[in-house]
Formats: sequence, structure tokens, C-alpha cells
Amino acid sequence: MALSSVELDTGAGISLHDVTPNIKAAVARSGIKNGFVTVTSQHTTTGIAINENEERLIEDVKGFLTRLIPPKGRYLHNDIALRDCPEDERENAHSHLAAMLLGSSEVIALADGELVLGQYQAVMLYELDGPRRRKVSVQVCGE
Amino acid sequence: MALSSVELDTGAGISLHDVTPNIKAAVARSGIKNGFVTVTSQHTTTGIAINENEERLIEDVKGFLTRLIPPKGRYLHNDIALRDCPEDERENAHSHLAAMLLGSSEVIALADGELVLGQYQAVMLYELDGPRRRKVSVQVCGE
Amino acid sequence: MALSSVELDTGAGISLHDVTPNIKAAVARSGIKNGFVTVTSQHTTTGIAINENEERLIEDVKGFLTRLIPPKGRYLHNDIALRDCPEDERENAHSHLAAMLLGSSEVIALADGELVLGQYQAVMLYELDGPRRRKVSVQVCGE
Repeated sequence: MALSSVELDTGAGISLHDVTPNIKAAVARSGIKNGFVTVTSQHTTTGIAINENEERLIEDVKGFLTRLIPPKGRYLHNDIALRDCPEDERENAHSHLAAMLLGSSEVIALADGELVLGQYQAVMLYELDGPRRRKVSVQVCGE
Repeated sequence: MALSSVELDTGAGISLHDVTPNIKAAVARSGIKNGFVTVTSQHTTTGIAINENEERLIEDVKGFLTRLIPPKGRYLHNDIALRDCPEDERENAHSHLAAMLLGSSEVIALADGELVLGQYQAVMLYELDGPRRRKVSVQVCGE
Repeated sequence: MALSSVELDTGAGISLHDVTPNIKAAVARSGIKNGFVTVTSQHTTTGIAINENEERLIEDVKGFLTRLIPPKGRYLHNDIALRDCPEDERENAHSHLAAMLLGSSEVIALADGELVLGQYQAVMLYELDGPRRRKVSVQVCGE
């Protein structure tokens, strides 16, 4: 078992970040050949999902999530940002709701030292309230 | 490896339940220090997601899911409840659809006996068709 | 640890496929009695979710996803299909977006050789851009 974390700086608002190379590096460092990898975001306004890393699709994701959960909607959670103003709090209820739909973890099998992923699959961190410094935990399990 | 389950009684309609303390207790009981924990709901009208346990956000979640998937919409699945009336069946197609979006499991890394979670992260059971008695399985893996 | 894969041919557009029997067969073949199973789709236009395998609910899923993410909407990603026309590329941005919401993996605990699932729970592959030949990886872990 080998635990590590990926740290990265994200873009403004919604941005997608392909962490597949970081996961592959963690697998290589671990020396583990067969098993699986768990990938979990450590934040409540990010998501982890496996999808295609394609720039036009990324724009579609941003448009879709913005229409589905309008940032300027009326959300009770945003009163915290308005009233209490802790340093790291923003009007980000929409980001929490999107994170809820995307999920915070995925598990990928590992065979002969390679992630068992299809041709177009990339493990993506979805920043939903950037820019921020983010951390994703990567646990490689097996032998 | 140590398998246990969390049982809890949920609220009416949509309600959110923070099971992080239960998971931490399962980890402590297991004696396992490094590895990961899998958390899986055992129901088709609940979801498991990691988010902030904040009361206004929880109200936002209820409002958002109700607008996204109106309980009073026209769903074919609800004919079962109307026609066959099994004891535990309700008009709950909207609950199944929400469960599909939320997902039924998450995986969290474990380091030095602590869940690798960010400051605001809580593992939440989303009841989507309460009140009911619910079960969540918690598998602690590692050494 | 025992890794295998489920291969299946899916239906047109959106179709749901219950892979629970395949997973149970993989568990039986592995001889592993206690642990967990990871299930991960190997495609970017499919999802994995646990839900009830009920035919009217499946129709509700198709209707809901089609309304939520209209296939005929304007998506930038679809320009690839129109312009470059690789053999396996279709106008499928809506399928990628649905896959993002559904997620690509689930983890299920295993006790005494049985999946720890509730009465109505089935592990479903959601085809979102069929028909296609699809692969799902199943990793059985434990002892």
C-alpha cells in the first residue's frame, strides 16, 4: 500500500485538471503491479470523475454545470459568505451542489503496473470554485 | 480487513446524515492504521457523497434536488406503488433518479489511523425517500 | 486479488445493463470470501451506478437523462464528430456529460462470499451512447 497526494493550483471558477499522469507516477513510485488505485479529492467544492480530456468537452462541462446550477441562484449557504466572511469562504453553494453530483472518489484497477482505463479515459479533478490550491489523495494497493 | 455497518433512522423526504463519526469509530475499533475505507449504501433510494455538513447547505441540497427531479413529475416506476402496493413501496421514482446521480459509494484513504479528509469534508448519507431505517456498509482495509 | 472484466454489447442510445450476475460469478471464481469488489467502466460515455433493475424505472432514467442533457443541444465537443469524423466518434457530448454525473466506479463490500447489497440493489452499467461493445473491470479483493 502506498499513499501519496497530488497538489495543484486550479483555474478560476470551473476548471478541469487531468491528474492521470500524477496517478501513473504514484503507481510507478510504489512498485505495485497488480491491485487498484483509489483517488479521492480532499475538498467539498471539487469533484473527481473519469472522462475524456478534450478541450471542447471541457467547455461543454463548464456551460452545462453553469446552466444546471446557476452560480447567481438564491442559496441559503451563501449567507455564510455574506455575513461571516471567513477568509476562505465564498458564495459557493452552487459549487458544493455540483461536487455532490460529481462525487469525490473513483477506484481504478491496476494490472501489470498499468491503470485499467479505456483509450479515452482520464482521471479528472473538477475545480468548481477556483482558483484554489487543491489536494487529491492517491492510494495504490496491491502487490 | 474489518467490515461493519452503520444503521440509522432517517427523516422525512430528503434528509442528510453525517456518518463520519460512525466511520471514525469503525476505524478505531478495527485497529487498522493505514489503508482506506469503503463506504457503501445498501439502498436504491439513498446516496453517499462527501460534502460539508452545514445546515443551510443541506436546505439548498433539498431545494436543488426537488427542483431538478420533481417528486410529483410523471414517472412510470410510480405505477408500481399505485397498482401493486407492496408494503415498502412508495411513489419514489424521483428518489431512485437522485440516487443514481449521487452514487452509492465513496472510498477514503486512511493514514496513521485518521481518514484523509479535508477540513470541511464529511461523509454524508443522503436519504431521498424517508423516513426509513437505513444501513451503510463500512469496510476498513489495511494494516 | 482477482481481476477480470465483463464484456457486453449494449443497446441503442441509452440502455441499462445489470452486471450483478457477472460480478457474482467473478467473486465465485476468485474464491475470495471477505473483502470488497471494485467495479469500473472502461469508457467515457458510460456510467456505473447501483440501482434497482426495474423496467419502468429504466424508462424513467432514459427520459430523465434525455430531458436533463438534450442530445440535440449545442455542444462544442460535437464539432469533432462533424469535422474530423474518426470512425468511433459520434455526436455524443451529452453522453460524456451524463457519464460525468453518474460516475465510473462503485465499491461493494463482500462478506462470506456474498456482495453486501440491499434487496433491490443491482450494479448497473449505463450505456449512454450505444450501441457499442463495452468493458467493465471487476477487481475482487480480500481473502
